[in-house]
Amino acid sequence: MIIVLKPGTSKEAADEILERISEKGCRPLYMPGTERVVLGAIGDERVLKALHLESYPQVESVTPILSPYKLVSRELHPHDTLVSIGGKVLVGGQRFVIIAGPCAVESREQLTRTAEVARKEGVLCLRGGAFKPRSSPYAFQGLGVQGLEILSEVGQALGMATVTEVVDVADVEVVSRYVDALQVGARNMQNFRMLLEIGRGQKPVILKRGMAASVQDLLLAAEYIVSEGNPNVILCERGIKTFETVTRNTLDLSAVPYIKQHSHLPILVDPSHGTGVRELISPMTRAAAACGADGVMVEVHIDPVAALSDGQQSLFPEQFCSLMKDLRPIVEAVGKTL
Amino acid sequence: MIIVLKPGTSKEAADEILERISEKGCRPLYMPGTERVVLGAIGDERVLKALHLESYPQVESVTPILSPYKLVSRELHPHDTLVSIGGKVLVGGQRFVIIAGPCAVESREQLTRTAEVARKEGVLCLRGGAFKPRSSPYAFQGLGVQGLEILSEVGQALGMATVTEVVDVADVEVVSRYVDALQVGARNMQNFRMLLEIGRGQKPVILKRGMAASVQDLLLAAEYIVSEGNPNVILCERGIKTFETVTRNTLDLSAVPYIKQHSHLPILVDPSHGTGVRELISPMTRAAAACGADGVMVEVHIDPVAALSDGQQSLFPEQFCSLMKDLRPIVEAVGKTL
Amino acid sequence: MIIVLKPGTSKEAADEILERISEKGCRPLYMPGTERVVLGAIGDERVLKALHLESYPQVESVTPILSPYKLVSRELHPHDTLVSIGGKVLVGGQRFVIIAGPCAVESREQLTRTAEVARKEGVLCLRGGAFKPRSSPYAFQGLGVQGLEILSEVGQALGMATVTEVVDVADVEVVSRYVDALQVGARNMQNFRMLLEIGRGQKPVILKRGMAASVQDLLLAAEYIVSEGNPNVILCERGIKTFETVTRNTLDLSAVPYIKQHSHLPILVDPSHGTGVRELISPMTRAAAACGADGVMVEVHIDPVAALSDGQQSLFPEQFCSLMKDLRPIVEAVGKTL
Amino acid sequence: MIIVLKPGTSKEAADEILERISEKGCRPLYMPGTERVVLGAIGDERVLKALHLESYPQVESVTPILSPYKLVSRELHPHDTLVSIGGKVLVGGQRFVIIAGPCAVESREQLTRTAEVARKEGVLCLRGGAFKPRSSPYAFQGLGVQGLEILSEVGQALGMATVTEVVDVADVEVVSRYVDALQVGARNMQNFRMLLEIGRGQKPVILKRGMAASVQDLLLAAEYIVSEGNPNVILCERGIKTFETVTRNTLDLSAVPYIKQHSHLPILVDPSHGTGVRELISPMTRAAAACGADGVMVEVHIDPVAALSDGQQSLFPEQFCSLMKDLRPIVEAVGKTL
Repeated sequence: MIIVLKPGTSKEAADEILERISEKGCRPLYMPGTERVVLGAIGDERVLKALHLESYPQVESVTPILSPYKLVSRELHPHDTLVSIGGKVLVGGQRFVIIAGPCAVESREQLTRTAEVARKEGVLCLRGGAFKPRSSPYAFQGLGVQGLEILSEVGQALGMATVTEVVDVADVEVVSRYVDALQVGARNMQNFRMLLEIGRGQKPVILKRGMAASVQDLLLAAEYIVSEGNPNVILCERGIKTFETVTRNTLDLSAVPYIKQHSHLPILVDPSHGTGVRELISPMTRAAAACGADGVMVEVHIDPVAALSDGQQSLFPEQFCSLMKDLRPIVEAVGKTL
Repeated sequence: MIIVLKPGTSKEAADEILERISEKGCRPLYMPGTERVVLGAIGDERVLKALHLESYPQVESVTPILSPYKLVSRELHPHDTLVSIGGKVLVGGQRFVIIAGPCAVESREQLTRTAEVARKEGVLCLRGGAFKPRSSPYAFQGLGVQGLEILSEVGQALGMATVTEVVDVADVEVVSRYVDALQVGARNMQNFRMLLEIGRGQKPVILKRGMAASVQDLLLAAEYIVSEGNPNVILCERGIKTFETVTRNTLDLSAVPYIKQHSHLPILVDPSHGTGVRELISPMTRAAAACGADGVMVEVHIDPVAALSDGQQSLFPEQFCSLMKDLRPIVEAVGKTL
Repeated sequence: MIIVLKPGTSKEAADEILERISEKGCRPLYMPGTERVVLGAIGDERVLKALHLESYPQVESVTPILSPYKLVSRELHPHDTLVSIGGKVLVGGQRFVIIAGPCAVESREQLTRTAEVARKEGVLCLRGGAFKPRSSPYAFQGLGVQGLEILSEVGQALGMATVTEVVDVADVEVVSRYVDALQVGARNMQNFRMLLEIGRGQKPVILKRGMAASVQDLLLAAEYIVSEGNPNVILCERGIKTFETVTRNTLDLSAVPYIKQHSHLPILVDPSHGTGVRELISPMTRAAAACGADGVMVEVHIDPVAALSDGQQSLFPEQFCSLMKDLRPIVEAVGKTL
Repeated sequence: MIIVLKPGTSKEAADEILERISEKGCRPLYMPGTERVVLGAIGDERVLKALHLESYPQVESVTPILSPYKLVSRELHPHDTLVSIGGKVLVGGQRFVIIAGPCAVESREQLTRTAEVARKEGVLCLRGGAFKPRSSPYAFQGLGVQGLEILSEVGQALGMATVTEVVDVADVEVVSRYVDALQVGARNMQNFRMLLEIGRGQKPVILKRGMAASVQDLLLAAEYIVSEGNPNVILCERGIKTFETVTRNTLDLSAVPYIKQHSHLPILVDPSHGTGVRELISPMTRAAAACGADGVMVEVHIDPVAALSDGQQSLFPEQFCSLMKDLRPIVEAVGKTL
């Protein structure tokens, strides 16, 4: 940890901080420069953080040297983590995983027919929302537990693993009973209470990046779950908020190779929410595969025109089939299988 | 609602949409242009939204004419809403309200001594976190219910109303029992389940803008609460995420007059989180008052150096006194009282 | 064009605007709704724009229906534009084009040795800056005309086309004499005077997206050049400014398929500036190819450690060779050649 | 300067960098930690920057300790800089300066009548664009030299100093002949060639912050001008690009007190471009005054409905008068005069 002091700071004020560093068992360093005094602290910075040195009036800035996340870091855990969803798909390995389905479960028929399209294309993991977080209180909010039942039954009927979003800590248990993997949506990435609850189980979880969350924030959110004991975390890049308006969000694909290099956790991409534009989903799925993602989550609907949510970004069945066809050569080009 | 069709759309495909508009009881309009066909739909757009016209393949774009929020809009409710917190302060009226206190309740002594500083300056509303949402799992997470007890007792002892953050739907009831107003933090602005729960009571709530939330998103989040029956909503601008790094967030003060003009709800500013820099809090408090905010929430700590969270943005007691002194002439210049 | 009037606007105030629309030869529409009056104007919106209807006090908002760019739009020009750089590479066709070289021309030896690395890998287009726009006045500003001479000679010696940045309207002529294609950097994307000057010639130009420029802003900047008579415009996505800090910019790859679908101009990607991180360049080059880009611009240096600018994002020669090797199967997977 | 090495870096690789630091006359420091080796370099970091240590493969990150700007920093120049515009207004002192006028000079009559409105309110500095940078090539581009002539004559007739934008290095000389202060627009903040040219004269310059420019970028752009010999630089905050769409830009008022604390240069605010919304200009002008700005630039037009550019953000004459009336008590509250 590097501590820069304000110009004109006295030796006493510097000593006060050096002593605190020593007391915590770290090695303090005093580096008087021409315009500023700089202090160093060598040792476990996570211990030093509790000193809140940035709060001292004589301190100008504090720069950590180590990343604030630890368990999810590749440094201490060099091998890729593999997460199995329901014994059907293994995320993080040689297979490029497709998780497909409608934004929301609307009816047994809608889900079955949509799932059949995906299943025929070889997809083994079905998504569908039962609890929908919506910006407007006047929008469709999901079928709730009935939606979970439908999702579970359709998954079993077709031999597909199931994923659905959980939006509240109180629902973690019931949702876990019905599906093979939980999804934490962008708006809940920093719902820390829910992360802790999920961390206390072993259910796989797909943790989506928040719209204002940096890559480091995402890894820290994952650290919440892993530090409680649940290692089965799958990250998901789904776009961040920027000034660009032709897309709903700005899909930050650079985050994919960055995370693969700095963390051992698998990472998916959601090009449906990441772009919000039907025509961009297939090319961005290919891009995701090309830069090293472990898979994608894609919204497809048997009849997007009738969809109760996110219809404009849901693929028509034939578009989904095209996507799969165009994706295959890319997946093979990076040495994986579909 | 204005619906622009893709170039080359057939008359039949246009008619399909016009019929849907009619069926919903709205008046359809057909406007063939030189390069595009444009359709109009006149009537209650909130009804039309359920048609999800943006999902149709022949539709290029859908532009709403009416704002998606209704109950919180000034149009249908031209008078300012006043919200009383614990009978001690009235937010939205002639008084510029100061809510002050430490980021987190750390101990009875810390809170008492900090509150006394504020009380002596005329502050009638005390803030202090008992449940702290923190980016890192290794950071101080708050004292929980014990913190609520301390906050409540100190408030009563000093005759101050109390405010604290609620981070989970399950806590709404217990937190409501201890304090005079709930606070929904930026990370929970779209925790819709919690908004609905809060909406079912009458407890005043300070709803902070999310870091990636537009002004419209904030007003829609407020609409969730009001539409459930709780009119006592106070908005709070606290900065959004941008590329600028000298401040922790970018305080979007333009949102204040915009919201005052478009909504009847009162709005506060949080310059502590909005800037994250101790030295900027006093000038930004003055700016908030000057552009029409109804008050501010400010972090102050009896000993910021020892603070367990956000010490670097907590004011020293003497800085808080200066802030109050410098603020007074501004408040009076806009015709309010402190 | 759709014009929404403020609530309570009188019939006379609406008529005033309807007359203006008529006078311009467009067809006006009057659509009184339940809460708002909406006006329509059918005809060439680019003519209507000159009315500045948004300036009227009774107008709440003006929404254009047609895109503001015209010549660069794919609608009126459905076939892909191909741009030849120096007769050596054709951008926009079946070949995925690599433009490689150092950030800045530093010396004949540095450029020759770097270019040889690229040439051996099959690269036919050499980049190198002679005039460098740098954030700090204390940073290396380029060799100027001497740099142009070196670039031109090295290009000829190795049979490579050459590209360099032009930073001022006064330099357009001299730079055009030395190189095969001009580059307009992100900071100059809206240097309209320079765009017009470039538009008056026929020299191919690579127009890079500004850091705060929307896709529409980029297409409008291209429209400046094309409308002056120069059709040889190549767009380049190079990242936008966002809150993320692990990368220097956020590479917005979704812009690539969006632009391919809405414009006939070719588009390149610059993963070097787009990420600013050496290790991310190869994966993002693959992603660019996978989502439909026509090529990439990549910074490579014979000795990045000694580079006078942008060394941290310059590839080592062996990294560049790996990039080419890993890229080939992706390019072939999308049906192109390298 | 603090240099963090990658994990596993050898002692030799560390020594290589330590030697380079010594060679430059700085004092090297070796700090082996538990997980990382950290190096320090004590001395003038601006010298060290030329080493480009971030380019070394063994280097993970380089953190400067000193700010990269020097001449514009308050540290070495603690007193406020005062800049006189045409001997009529002094920016940076006790007077809160208003610079008002239309976006563009359209005709002698338009400018005269608009200027008279401002002059009657006590405004001593007149703005008006002669060269207009416009996103679309089809928009009004200004009257050019004729506009300069009109501006100059109207200014003289009314006893007002004049300000206009310069958009190209070739125009600096001619524009300087006509007006009392140059303005560098947001799109040209990093037109370094033009900054250098302006720096070689003594003409006062209002340097506007770029839409993607950090506060540090703005100060570095100012450093370009000052380092060439022109100390008469006035900064101007005018909003940055963010995801918010109810305003044209997001006015970052926190930058005002930050810059006042870190630089000795005066700073203005442009609430017209900063918000793009007529109704927000007056409250944001008050906020600017309250947080310490030295003045504002405001767009006013004798007939905004007929304005050829930016009419929607131009104040009507009576709105401008209201603004001045509401501003006065705020200016006095902060101890200044209008």
